[in-house]
Amino acid sequence: QLAQLTADLFPRQILTGTRVTITAGPTREAIDPVRYISNHSSGKMGYAIAEAARDAGAEVTLISGPVNLPTPERVKRIDVVSAQDMYAASMNALIQTDIFIATAAVADFRVENSHNQKIKKQHNSSGAMTLTLVENPDIVAAVAKHSPKPFTVGFAAETQDVENYARQKIQRKGLDMIVANDVSRTDIGFNSDQNAVTVIWPEGQQPLELASKAQIARDLVTLISAHYKKAR
Amino acid sequence: QLAQLTADLFPRQILTGTRVTITAGPTREAIDPVRYISNHSSGKMGYAIAEAARDAGAEVTLISGPVNLPTPERVKRIDVVSAQDMYAASMNALIQTDIFIATAAVADFRVENSHNQKIKKQHNSSGAMTLTLVENPDIVAAVAKHSPKPFTVGFAAETQDVENYARQKIQRKGLDMIVANDVSRTDIGFNSDQNAVTVIWPEGQQPLELASKAQIARDLVTLISAHYKKAR
Repeated sequence: QLAQLTADLFPRQILTGTRVTITAGPTREAIDPVRYISNHSSGKMGYAIAEAARDAGAEVTLISGPVNLPTPERVKRIDVVSAQDMYAASMNALIQTDIFIATAAVADFRVENSHNQKIKKQHNSSGAMTLTLVENPDIVAAVAKHSPKPFTVGFAAETQDVENYARQKIQRKGLDMIVANDVSRTDIGFNSDQNAVTVIWPEGQQPLELASKAQIARDLVTLISAHYKKAR
Repeated sequence: QLAQLTADLFPRQILTGTRVTITAGPTREAIDPVRYISNHSSGKMGYAIAEAARDAGAEVTLISGPVNLPTPERVKRIDVVSAQDMYAASMNALIQTDIFIATAAVADFRVENSHNQKIKKQHNSSGAMTLTLVENPDIVAAVAKHSPKPFTVGFAAETQDVENYARQKIQRKGLDMIVANDVSRTDIGFNSDQNAVTVIWPEGQQPLELASKAQIARDLVTLISAHYKKAR
């Protein structure tokens, strides 16, 4: 009932006619058919933003890595696995995107030569093995360099010096806004249902204090909508 | 109703008074606080065997990696994350174990120096990076070398030459039985609710044709129970 009340208070029409594309969840980078590299992203924050943007009247596309979450109603969901898949799906969505929100925890690196067969343990010598990793494409930076460029919002999950790294990212990648959170805090982030973030744009910033991811998502959508309209 | 009928037909008392420890699911090996190496094991086969062993009258301990499955009723579940955690929990359980069934897809390797802080992307040179991996302890081999030794059943998930690798494993690790499945088949294994396996012991073998994991688990428990009693 409280959730319903909050939903009713939420300004429903602020994104009517706006096309929002959101990336969410982790990516998985194959080592071989059995093993992969991934990360602890649950996708909850991105899915909550998809619901909030939809409730604000936007037409929402959700490009999702492997997560255990139901598809939000009236949201177009595109499932991907690797960072390269997510890059391709994102580039493909850009011709129909006014606002791009990159919440996904995209793997920075993939395995250089992933194997078609399961790698066998070597029963010799030191028992050590090396994996060579190469950089994945930077999706949100590529989106921000695209022409025409959508209003581009990045996320920065950091464990130290959070705001400083976030401001560096906004400049280096040419973002319009970045949402920074400190994943070293155990009460928030990743698999939690709560979050606390700092929203940063070139000329200012605003903290969003500890709240449910649904509430943070609504506040974020309100902020993004205001800055998007100012930028047009 | 059919499931209930099958359950009723299952010989309930064949493992009464027997203590069964089962490992299940994947392990996760930390790269840093955000990233990890894991594998596609869902844990479904191990959980199905836990239920079948319980229904056969056994006292069941389930040592589980991170999975999205409810704890079976009347089963003692111990949650672990890494292969080293699973090794410690397994060794700890041995004093109260008559039969040890290692279904978990344990990571063969862990990261040599996992980082306490999120690794930053290097913005220089080639963009490549290497991860040094070191071998994890071999849990099922350690169990089979333990004194007193429980009746020890391993699993072999392979993508090629499945039976040959399984027979090599049974010898090298000193197992009493191994359950081999071909994870390159897309209709079975890992996240599927069905499976088809070949059960191999030093003097023989028996295929269990494509069936639900619950049915495969019941057939396996019946086979394991018969060989366990013969070995005592």
